Amino acid sequence: MNKALLKIKPVGGVGQIGSNMTLIQGANDTILIDAGILFPYEDFFDINYLIPNLEDIPTPSHLVITHGHEDHIGAIAHVVKKFPNIKVLASPFTAGLIRKKLEFNHTPYPITEYKHFEQLGFKDFTIDPIHVNHSIPETVGLLIKDVSEQLGFFFISDFKIDEKTIYERPFDFEKLIKLSKNLKKRILLCDSTNITSKTTQTPSEQDLIPIFDNLFKEAQNRIFITCFSSNIHRLMTFIALCKKHNKKLIPHGRSMISYLNTANELGMIPDYASVVKMAESVTGSSENHVILLSGCQGDFRGTFRRFCIGEDSQFKPQSTDTVLMSSKAIPGNEKKISMLINKLSEAGCKVVTGSDQLIHVSGHPGRDDLKRLYDNFKPTDIIPIHGESYFIREHIEFIKSTYPLATPHYILNNDEIVITNDLKLNILDGETIDPIIIHGRGIVLEKEKISERRKLACNGSVFLSLKLTSTRMKVEKFNFSLMGLPTIVTLNEERFKKFLDNYFIQINFKDIEKTNEELRVAIRKYFDQILGYKPITTIHIL
Amino acid sequence: MNKALLKIKPVGGVGQIGSNMTLIQGANDTILIDAGILFPYEDFFDINYLIPNLEDIPTPSHLVITHGHEDHIGAIAHVVKKFPNIKVLASPFTAGLIRKKLEFNHTPYPITEYKHFEQLGFKDFTIDPIHVNHSIPETVGLLIKDVSEQLGFFFISDFKIDEKTIYERPFDFEKLIKLSKNLKKRILLCDSTNITSKTTQTPSEQDLIPIFDNLFKEAQNRIFITCFSSNIHRLMTFIALCKKHNKKLIPHGRSMISYLNTANELGMIPDYASVVKMAESVTGSSENHVILLSGCQGDFRGTFRRFCIGEDSQFKPQSTDTVLMSSKAIPGNEKKISMLINKLSEAGCKVVTGSDQLIHVSGHPGRDDLKRLYDNFKPTDIIPIHGESYFIREHIEFIKSTYPLATPHYILNNDEIVITNDLKLNILDGETIDPIIIHGRGIVLEKEKISERRKLACNGSVFLSLKLTSTRMKVEKFNFSLMGLPTIVTLNEERFKKFLDNYFIQINFKDIEKTNEELRVAIRKYFDQILGYKPITTIHIL
Repeated sequence: MNKALLKIKPVGGVGQIGSNMTLIQGANDTILIDAGILFPYEDFFDINYLIPNLEDIPTPSHLVITHGHEDHIGAIAHVVKKFPNIKVLASPFTAGLIRKKLEFNHTPYPITEYKHFEQLGFKDFTIDPIHVNHSIPETVGLLIKDVSEQLGFFFISDFKIDEKTIYERPFDFEKLIKLSKNLKKRILLCDSTNITSKTTQTPSEQDLIPIFDNLFKEAQNRIFITCFSSNIHRLMTFIALCKKHNKKLIPHGRSMISYLNTANELGMIPDYASVVKMAESVTGSSENHVILLSGCQGDFRGTFRRFCIGEDSQFKPQSTDTVLMSSKAIPGNEKKISMLINKLSEAGCKVVTGSDQLIHVSGHPGRDDLKRLYDNFKPTDIIPIHGESYFIREHIEFIKSTYPLATPHYILNNDEIVITNDLKLNILDGETIDPIIIHGRGIVLEKEKISERRKLACNGSVFLSLKLTSTRMKVEKFNFSLMGLPTIVTLNEERFKKFLDNYFIQINFKDIEKTNEELRVAIRKYFDQILGYKPITTIHIL
Repeated sequence: MNKALLKIKPVGGVGQIGSNMTLIQGANDTILIDAGILFPYEDFFDINYLIPNLEDIPTPSHLVITHGHEDHIGAIAHVVKKFPNIKVLASPFTAGLIRKKLEFNHTPYPITEYKHFEQLGFKDFTIDPIHVNHSIPETVGLLIKDVSEQLGFFFISDFKIDEKTIYERPFDFEKLIKLSKNLKKRILLCDSTNITSKTTQTPSEQDLIPIFDNLFKEAQNRIFITCFSSNIHRLMTFIALCKKHNKKLIPHGRSMISYLNTANELGMIPDYASVVKMAESVTGSSENHVILLSGCQGDFRGTFRRFCIGEDSQFKPQSTDTVLMSSKAIPGNEKKISMLINKLSEAGCKVVTGSDQLIHVSGHPGRDDLKRLYDNFKPTDIIPIHGESYFIREHIEFIKSTYPLATPHYILNNDEIVITNDLKLNILDGETIDPIIIHGRGIVLEKEKISERRKLACNGSVFLSLKLTSTRMKVEKFNFSLMGLPTIVTLNEERFKKFLDNYFIQINFKDIEKTNEELRVAIRKYFDQILGYKPITTIHIL
């Protein structure tokens, strides 16, 4: 009988964008790749994030991180809590980000650094990190080979191919080709994020430089820029242009300052000291100020939003300001962001977005870039990952039409890819497991509690407490609170009081539970007749 | 001294998309154009809609409606309630829609029909409806002229220029030119919705026909289509293609059936009887079924959403189905819709969207279309309306660069355009007035109540009631309810009880109000330590 040589099971990130986490298992080894969070896909009322359900995951010995984005590292605190002996491996910059994050949340944990050129050895397989480009430094794909070196998975989560960038090496195809040349079964697991994009070849970070150069030149007065804080190479472009145009760069917002500091502490930013100034120490004419704002997604508590609506204590939008939006709206944030552009417009600012000029490039591959990866790795099988299920389907169609040499496989979270020792690939259908909702101090909030919260928010709430007479037959006293209800009822509490007084006359309290329920129904009906909806009603009879 | 000849004041729709409403005033006349609703610009928890604040609007004698979209007619019930003598004028089809809507909400009101060729006469001005194209039949622009016929406003809210359409006449430039030829001051108030669009000339409804023809031909089995129910011409295309391909059209969802019925009752749909079947009466092979679903924006209670997630009782998505999304996401709905596309993908349906093939065209003018309107009307002044404030600014820049013959004016809601009898144009800055939030049975919900609801939803809620002993010094009995809180506390109520018992030992109830507040703070702190956030806490001491 054929035994399983290697098994790969994504527990997050396939069928959804976010919460990337993949389980790799041999006979003797179990490891995880990445531990990311998912942002809520609908309004969950300030919920921080979601993570994959860790309940049924076998205990992994190692967690290998591909890069430092939140959808790859954000759930680490939960993973190390669940598996307290796990060894976490990350590149130096990524490790720096993880450490800062864990310390900020008072959950420090040791992170082991790995170098790009080092092979990670396990009992059943080896892992070679392959340098790729993306929108954050030190991103890798992982070439996972069984010990016989017949079978290889190239697991490449987020990437792009950037041959022009001046900040890092291009995608290391040479190493990939060299290390994979003897493989018989070559399986590619690969990013689907931009499969529906009209841009088939993702532009280089380098392509932005002349555009920004021109915008810096043209700016009448201050320049405000918002972008993803983790895009260190983009920030390095701003620093270089500040130096050229004799401007000062002022990072504003916790995350912008924190990412810049992490990169600087690792010596990644040559002109940091002469160009970057903290807001409180900056002097000189404001026309030489370039202010970098975090919160490019219009986050409710973000610095960019606060600036736009005039609530930032240090910087207010003025009619001579130029505001550059060097980022794209993550789906779901479009309207939030466009409302902020309106605010800037009303203040008279010159606003430039990525649809006006090329001031943002993606960190993910277009269709031509994917084709290039296929041509270089020459996979026998391709498994699209990292994308909504619609993207995964589109990616499958794309493979069929452009790379018929490989067999595409459609999987979603929790499906398991099993390669047996005769190098056959099987897919075991997994069941759909909902991600876990996290709120506050890392606490799990159950899905039905979200419904409870939604009901409170959609209908308002009535609390009524009754004190019965000593005979426990009549109401001696009562009190009520109306929450989230319109003034048409709150300014007319007398009417509700009268309704209750009349109601209490007719009833006794022999069966308190029954009376409570009848009263609750009557109160909901009372408000429904006035409002057209029924507030959530809670009654205590004491 | 120069007296005001005519005044125009938009009270909604300028600086936001929606709630279109404009006040026209002469010395003796006050009328309103349109009375629309605004959809919430952030999650307001099931809030139905917003309307302009009607408080300070002088009593209008007439309300003239340009077309039957919700953002132009949705607030009529509120306007007629506030101004019970107002005469509402609309075209026959629009009047049909308004009547159905008011009857459905049990607020019937007489609607007077006007014909496209009739001039509406008032004391200080005349109004000539000018036929334009849009995405709903019987849309007009309004040419408003003072009695001396020196001054003319061409008020054109939503429109497109469609010369190929087979369903109606093209934009009636001829009438516009003829009736405006002697005007000295020519002011254009004009739609800005598509000013940021890359499509400079909006395609015709006609352009969709060959594409749909092909998709109907290729479909393996059933075809599901979702689109805006009010787009009667689009529905007529589907009916014509059903006839050609020998298929039956099944409208599904209240709004789809209602719009089709209104159009059919007015004799607008020739093949209705032979092609359109109600879902309950349909027979024959399902491969001949074209099912039209309402709710193309992924609305929570919409038929399209219900179908996608497999909760429609009649139709479930199958792998042989073709689903055509003949609409665009209204900003804010992108993610909701993409989640539904995922569901269809997972069911194996073939999904076609407007970004795959030309199966949707806009009802608003591209930049070339705007230019054509300017060239035909030859305005002396242009005032962009109908758009977010960012769009209004962009429209101003566009006018400057393409039509320097006209002076552009930047206004927002409640700014007033005053033309004096020497034909000078002045703009009086108005103050920003927030729109009114409507929930349930047309009831106003105050903004601070929305915050209350948001707090309940974001933090959960604790309700505690205490009964004091007869000496009123100690707690005799208490009860509490925890709402929207995670099981980590709800399954551990004993711990909270103990906390309360211990707390009650230390206190007396001399100053009940003070004790209540201290206890409230202590409870919030208790939960904050466990959860990292503070539930909204209400205490009744009886």
